[in-house]
This record gives sequence, C-alpha cells and structure tokens, in this order.
Amino acid sequence: MITGATLIGSRDLSTTATFRAVDPSRGIEMEPAFSDAGPAEVDIATRLAAEAFPIYRATVPEQRAAFLDLIALKVEDVGDALIERATQETGLPTARLEGERSRTTSQLRLFANWVRAGGADEPRLDSPLPQRTPLPRADLRQRHIGIGPVAVFGASNFPLAFSVAGGDTASALAAGCPVIVKGHPAHPGTSELVGRAVRDAVAASGLPEGVFSLLTGRSNELGGALVADPRISAVGFTGSRAGGLALMKIATARPVPIPVYAEMSSINPVFLLPGALRARAEALAAGFVASLTLGAGQFCTNPGLVIALAGEDVDRFIAAAGARVSGASAATMLTPGIAGAYAKGISALEASPGVTEVARGGEGGPNGCRPSLFVADADLFMTAPVLAHEVFGASSLVIRCADEDEMRAVAHALEGQLTATLHLEPSDHDLAASLLPVLEDKAGRILANGWPTGVEVCHAMVHGGPFPATSDPRSTSVGTLAIRRFLRPVCYQDLPEDLLPPAVRTRNPLHLPRLVDGAVDLPTEPRS
Amino acid sequence: MITGATLIGSRDLSTTATFRAVDPSRGIEMEPAFSDAGPAEVDIATRLAAEAFPIYRATVPEQRAAFLDLIALKVEDVGDALIERATQETGLPTARLEGERSRTTSQLRLFANWVRAGGADEPRLDSPLPQRTPLPRADLRQRHIGIGPVAVFGASNFPLAFSVAGGDTASALAAGCPVIVKGHPAHPGTSELVGRAVRDAVAASGLPEGVFSLLTGRSNELGGALVADPRISAVGFTGSRAGGLALMKIATARPVPIPVYAEMSSINPVFLLPGALRARAEALAAGFVASLTLGAGQFCTNPGLVIALAGEDVDRFIAAAGARVSGASAATMLTPGIAGAYAKGISALEASPGVTEVARGGEGGPNGCRPSLFVADADLFMTAPVLAHEVFGASSLVIRCADEDEMRAVAHALEGQLTATLHLEPSDHDLAASLLPVLEDKAGRILANGWPTGVEVCHAMVHGGPFPATSDPRSTSVGTLAIRRFLRPVCYQDLPEDLLPPAVRTRNPLHLPRLVDGAVDLPTEPRS
Repeated sequence: MITGATLIGSRDLSTTATFRAVDPSRGIEMEPAFSDAGPAEVDIATRLAAEAFPIYRATVPEQRAAFLDLIALKVEDVGDALIERATQETGLPTARLEGERSRTTSQLRLFANWVRAGGADEPRLDSPLPQRTPLPRADLRQRHIGIGPVAVFGASNFPLAFSVAGGDTASALAAGCPVIVKGHPAHPGTSELVGRAVRDAVAASGLPEGVFSLLTGRSNELGGALVADPRISAVGFTGSRAGGLALMKIATARPVPIPVYAEMSSINPVFLLPGALRARAEALAAGFVASLTLGAGQFCTNPGLVIALAGEDVDRFIAAAGARVSGASAATMLTPGIAGAYAKGISALEASPGVTEVARGGEGGPNGCRPSLFVADADLFMTAPVLAHEVFGASSLVIRCADEDEMRAVAHALEGQLTATLHLEPSDHDLAASLLPVLEDKAGRILANGWPTGVEVCHAMVHGGPFPATSDPRSTSVGTLAIRRFLRPVCYQDLPEDLLPPAVRTRNPLHLPRLVDGAVDLPTEPRS
Repeated sequence: MITGATLIGSRDLSTTATFRAVDPSRGIEMEPAFSDAGPAEVDIATRLAAEAFPIYRATVPEQRAAFLDLIALKVEDVGDALIERATQETGLPTARLEGERSRTTSQLRLFANWVRAGGADEPRLDSPLPQRTPLPRADLRQRHIGIGPVAVFGASNFPLAFSVAGGDTASALAAGCPVIVKGHPAHPGTSELVGRAVRDAVAASGLPEGVFSLLTGRSNELGGALVADPRISAVGFTGSRAGGLALMKIATARPVPIPVYAEMSSINPVFLLPGALRARAEALAAGFVASLTLGAGQFCTNPGLVIALAGEDVDRFIAAAGARVSGASAATMLTPGIAGAYAKGISALEASPGVTEVARGGEGGPNGCRPSLFVADADLFMTAPVLAHEVFGASSLVIRCADEDEMRAVAHALEGQLTATLHLEPSDHDLAASLLPVLEDKAGRILANGWPTGVEVCHAMVHGGPFPATSDPRSTSVGTLAIRRFLRPVCYQDLPEDLLPPAVRTRNPLHLPRLVDGAVDLPTEPRS
C-alpha cells in the first residue's frame, strides 16, 4: 500500500531523488524510498489546484460536508496499517495514535457539520430601501467564499491530526479551497496512507483531481517553491519558529503577498497562585509532570514555564516535581533532529548562570528525551531572553518571584503564547483578576486549574495567539473558527435572483442562519 | 477653533517644523501653520495608547457604543465650520461634504449598535462533558477582544468618512482598540476639527486620554515611525499603491509583524453585456459619465474600465459617452499632487500605441481634472499591463472584445478589484453566469445594473478585494464586518464564573446572541 510516490491529483509521480523515513526508536532507515519532490512537482500540483478551484468552491455546503465525512471514513478504512506505520515512523505509542486518529476523523466531521450549518458562507442580507432619501439603498447580500488553493505543511508532532488530513486541511477544504499538502518528511508512509484515503474520497465524490495533492520531500526548496507559487492563496504551517519565519518572508515578498498561518513556538506559562500552591503543591506537581512528559513533551502546548512565589510552598512543589521527573523514563522523540535540538537546548540551560537543574529523567534508547526540570529567579528570567525560548520536548523551568508584583511583571514580560494557565483557589481570585487582562493580551487560551496539553476540537477553542506563538493572532488553527482563515467576503449588489449564489437567495434554499438587516435570522424549517 | 496643534491624548503639542494646507481651487496656502509631527510625537502618542488599551478594552459593549454615539454627536456639533473648512481644503462641493458628514456620523452609530448587538465579542460557549470517554470535555468559552492600539491613515479623498473619525477609526474603536490617526496633510484643519470632537468625546466618556490621538504631519518618516512602533498592533490605510506597499514592508519587517489593511487601487471594471448595450447604449453612457465624473473621479470605486463586445452598440455607447465627457467641465482635484499625477496618467495613455482618445472634458481652474475617455482593443489590453493601472481621477478606458470568449479572457486577466459591475438584460444571463465566478475571485463587490461609486455602509457591504485592490482580501474597510480586522479570539477553559468576562458568563448578562454548542442562541430578553 505504501509506494513512495508523491500524489499529484490522481497521479502517482516518482522522482529520481529519494529519501527514507527513520524509525526513531531504533535509529534505522525504513523502506520504501520516497520521492523527493521539488519545483517541477509543485508546478503540476498547483496547476491542477487552480483548475479545480472554481469547480470545488462552487459546491454547495452539503456536497463539501459529504466529502469531508467521506474522507473521515476513508481514513478509518485504512485500518491498523495506518497506526502501525505511524508508530514506526514517530515512536509514539499505539494508544496515542489511535486517539489521534479518532481526533482527526471527528475533526473532519465537525467541519462537515459546521459547513452544513452555514459556517463557511456566513450570509448577510441588507434589504433594499427604494424610498430612502436622499438616495435609495440597493439590495446588498454578502457571503464568504474560499480564498484559493491552500498550501498545508504537515507537522512532525501530530502525524495525523495536524498533518495530511489534519486541522489545516479540514478547514481549508471546508472553506472550499483545494489543498496541497507538503507532508512532513519524518512520517512519509503515514502521509501516503492518509493521502491515498483523501484522494479516494476526491474521486468517489466526483470532484476534480486537483482538489488534493500530497507532495513528499524534505528540501526547503520544495516548501519555498510551493509558497512562492502564484496559484497558492494561503499557507497553513505548524512547526519551528525559524521555519515559520522563512515561509512568512517568502509569502510577503511575492508580487501578490498571501497570508501565512504559522503556529510556531510557545512555552505555555503556568501560574501557580499562592492559595493553590499552599493547598496542593504535591498534587500540582503530579499533574504538571504528567503534562510535561506526555508524548515526550512534544506538544505545542507543553508547560515549559511555571511561575510561583518564592517560599516553602513552591519548594515543596519543586521537590515533588523533581522526584517525579527523576523517576520518569526517556521516551523516544520524533526524529534524530528533534532529539538533537532538545539535547542542545538542555545544555544551554545547564550552562546558563543562575539557572539550577532540579532533576533529569532516566537515559533512554536512541533519540530518547530525558525529562528535565530547572529553576531560576524571576529577575534573571526577565533579563535573559534565552530563558523564554522554547526547548521542544519535556523540559520546563520554574520561575520564583519575590512577590505578586514581580509575578505580574513576569506576565508582562512574556512573548505571545498559545496558552496561559492559572492554578487558583478562591483566595487567589484578586491576584488572578489582576493577571487575567495581561494574559489575555499574551495568549490565545486561558486555563484555570488544568494543564495546557490536550486541545479540544470544538467551536470555542482558540489554538493561536500573539507572535511568536503564531504569525497571526486573529486566528486559530484548531476548532471551527479556523475556517475563517481561508475565506473572504463577497458582496452582491442588486443581482437578479437567478444569478445569486444559493446561500444568499431570498428564499434561503440552503436553510442557513443568516444576518438579515443586522439581526440573526434562523431558518424556519430544518435542513433536510 | 483651528490652532495647528497636533493632538496627543488631551494635550496640544506644537513642533517647530510646520506646514500649511493648500486651497486647491485657488492654488494658495491657507492659515494656520500646522505642526509637522515626527517620531518624538509618535512615541508619546503610542505610549499613551498602550496605557489606555487595557482600560479601554475592558469596557462593556454599552460603554463603547455610547462613546461612539457621542463622537457622532460631537462631530455634528462642530457645525458649519467643519463643512466650510473641508470645502476650502479639498475643493469638494458643500453638498457632497454634508452628505459625507452624515455618512460619517451614521457610520459611527452603526458600529455603536453593532457593538451593542455582540458584533465585537462574537461569543461562543461549548458545554463541559464531564462524563465523556475516554476524556471529559472541559468548559470552553470564546470571545473576541481588541488586538491593540491601531494606526489609522486618513485618506485624501474622503476628508470625513475615511479620515479622522471615519470607517477605520470607528471600527477600531468599536473593537476596543485605541486609535492614533495620522491625518492626511491635504486637510489638516478639517482633521483638527474632527480630532477635537473625538477628544471631547473621550474626556466626556471618562476614558483614558490615550484612546485617541491625531498626528499632523506630511513626512513619510512620521507614518513609518508610527507603523514601526512596537506598541502599534494593526494599521488601517486608504491611499496609493506605493504608499500601501511601503507600509506593508515596514509592518512585515518589524520584530513582531502586524497586519496592514491597505486599500490601494482599483479600476472597477464595468461589463456592458450585449443585450443591455443593445437595449440602452445611450442611457448607459449617461449613467457611466455621471459615475465617472462624480467628485472629479476621485473615488476608489470610480469606473476606470468598460468592457464590451466590438460592434455598433458599443460604438453608440462610445459616441454618447464621448459627447458627455466633452461637455463635462473640469472639477477641482484634491491636491496639486493628485492633479499632477492625473495629468501624467492621461499623457501616458495618450502616448500608448493602440489607445485612442475618444474625448476630453473642458479645461478648468487650478488643479482641474479634465474628464477623459479612451478606447482600445482587448488583445492590446491583455498584453499592456500599464493599461490596467489606476489613473486616479475622471479617466476611463473602453475595451472592445472580439467575442464573448475574449470578454471572459479580459475578466481572467484582471488584477484584484474593489468592484466589478455587470450591465445585463435577461438575455445576458448565460454570459453573466459564466463571468460571475471569475469576477467573484477578482473583486470584493459585484454589482448588476448600477454604478460602483457610492458605497453603502451596512452589514452586507464589502469594500475590499484581492491584491492590489487591498493588502488583505479577507476583510472589508466599510460595513460592520470591518470590525473583525481589529479583533482576536480568546478562549477560556474552566475559568470560575466570577473571573469570566461578562460576554461569556453563563447567565448572558449582556444579552448577546451567542453560539452555544454550535447553534445560535438568541438572548431570551431584549437588551435593556
């Protein structure tokens, strides 16, 4: 089932240059060889996508929804082979990957239902006012349409949910945009299996082949050519800050600049407020280390920074967390490159004056991630920007603050984050209330008494945040609001009824909720 | 009432460097001298805005709405002095400026009501599912908050509606963002009058002074310093393509890049379909020339390109339109610079091989705009990109197509536009249906049987479009959707009720429409 081909529309293309996936838990290369695509393959894929776009975006919501549902089914149909290959390519445990597959398919189905509910069109109608003086008002109707073909860069750390048929792909397809995925080279077999499932769904839905392509390859040139291609209208990316910044640079230098939605780096500060720390330092330590070490710490929302007041309560927390970190074993990281970068990041922290190592976890096999915990004082943190850089993996830094003012100063000093967490008791509410407005300006999601790992796919989720957490704080890459990234509004003035798109026709044939003259107008009969 | 000061928060600041407004209809400088602000004034204004931001964005919808309503009232209170000064500074007729003032104040009031209706918050709630397996779902709530202080660049051609208290300012203030306006140097006295009205409303509303500042000045350095300032979070701009591109470059080169909403250039193609042209060539010519010459052609939506099939019907149109253009008198343009650029653009068209001048309007006084009409064939248009460049003013080019295929080819060849117009009869619907999908991808607004000048301020309006019409096709600068440009979503996970912002509290104390578990939930009692 895995051939190593790159999937351009309905065609399997092979290149002379190839690369192989590495099984990180054994440190060895795997079969088969995968095509290492480049600008020539980009050119074919983008041409097909441009041809498919007008046809695909003309589909009504139910057609796109049924297509998304079918992708979910086809991904499920791949069966155990998908989990087996993904386990080998990522070193992630089977149960985690099964959970991620379920998240991926339910994500596709959530977007399907959101499209059915009008979440793509967002129609608005303003009634004509022919008698208005001094000038009559025209008949004005607005809907949203897909922005154009979207380039999606698969993430290393979510080989299913943020990859070939992951959140970016689901939201772009839901918006009516063809998708070209640049698969992550760490899991090309997983990508091909999912890519073939999506392709099958395209064909079975009678859609043009260019609605979906999967480019395999590992060169920066491949990604650069894709973002620079004039037929690409937007980019979704999850990965490193350096990678995201490079794509942003290419996208803004184009003759026609395009938006890049890059989710890049976050250390996800966790504030342990005094009452909570006093009441349950040890329980907090247990929850913290469980979140820290989950998936070898390879989550965008990994808790990389803990902020508390100096004193015996935080010392109890540090002691308990340190004991758990010491007792934690090394889990396999996704790639040798990621494991190497982790080791380098830890060495840098160890060498930083004023930073004390609290604990290291056990040694592991090849590419193992030894969990690590460090502690430093807040005044140092605020003057040493390197301490705020993400170390991707199971490493965290506890910051001790002299008082509540210093805790607020740390909050003010933070860069943009995906999440910020408060652990609190009722006695902490005044302090929490003073931190909240600061954290709202710094992060896309604020949690109370929980841990940031685990991102629910739903309507209210925000997986986003100010730079450098993402390139664009106005958006989210998880949850139904993510569809807005790939839509643009169009207004129709005085168009004859038969030329109007169904979403804005007078009789509301799609039964969508609409904004009519500024008020929500719910359909009178349910969708059939 | 006009002092020439630059208005930084509640302070009047004066600089040693000064400049004067020019009365374009007489070609002479006017009193008083205005401060020519620079980076030092930017620094004070942005510091005040950053201080004001947390306080201003914490206001509930009714507070912000009342503030917007008060600005409208204060602008009205300036009275005749505003219209008099604006007439002198712009050369625009009194009636036009009175209409524009009314549009400005009704725009402020529309945003006030949109904020009251929840258009800023857009709340979403997903209910917790504590019994869900394998993992419970947390309590997740989302609202939107202001992105931060916004820099607004006043436009030359709408001294009221796209200037100090215009659409960008209204939507940014509605979103909860402090605003720093860089007033257009062509109408500094008009700007000061409106700026003082906004400042009065800030003070009377008990808001921090940094919610609004007005920087007067004419250097590119001033605008550049404003966009580069780290305390600015977004930019609204209406002006030339060169100006917009320069601001985009500064914004993307910042350590923290920020969005620029630049509305830059558009030639607003008008397709005269065969049936319509046959039925009413002369009436179309009358409507066309009225739209072309309105306000000396100084509208973003001026019809700069007319596309029709070659033949006797379009010849009738050209003859009738040419006669009207010849009979039109020259109206005063906004500035000597704009008049000079117009003359240069006309000379370039006159010198273009294959472009024929149909008619020129009469000579006028200083800075007069002689209306101009040209004709060329479609094959030339598609190979000479210069013909698709905007000539700001009352100039238009008629393109003759050999057949319907060539008409579609012209549509495909267009750059991004603010508007595209179809004049049609029922017999034209098939051709229109084939053009529509192309035009939807090219323009923010599609009109039938009307003229693009005149942009209604309402919910369904889109005054935007693909590059280079604007820098960001996902947005509009007119209508209530414009508020989204200055908002970002924030998610709250398991926050205690008393720490939640009112918009997402369980009992819905603000009585806003909300999305609850994916379905629209209308408030059970009306807003008080």
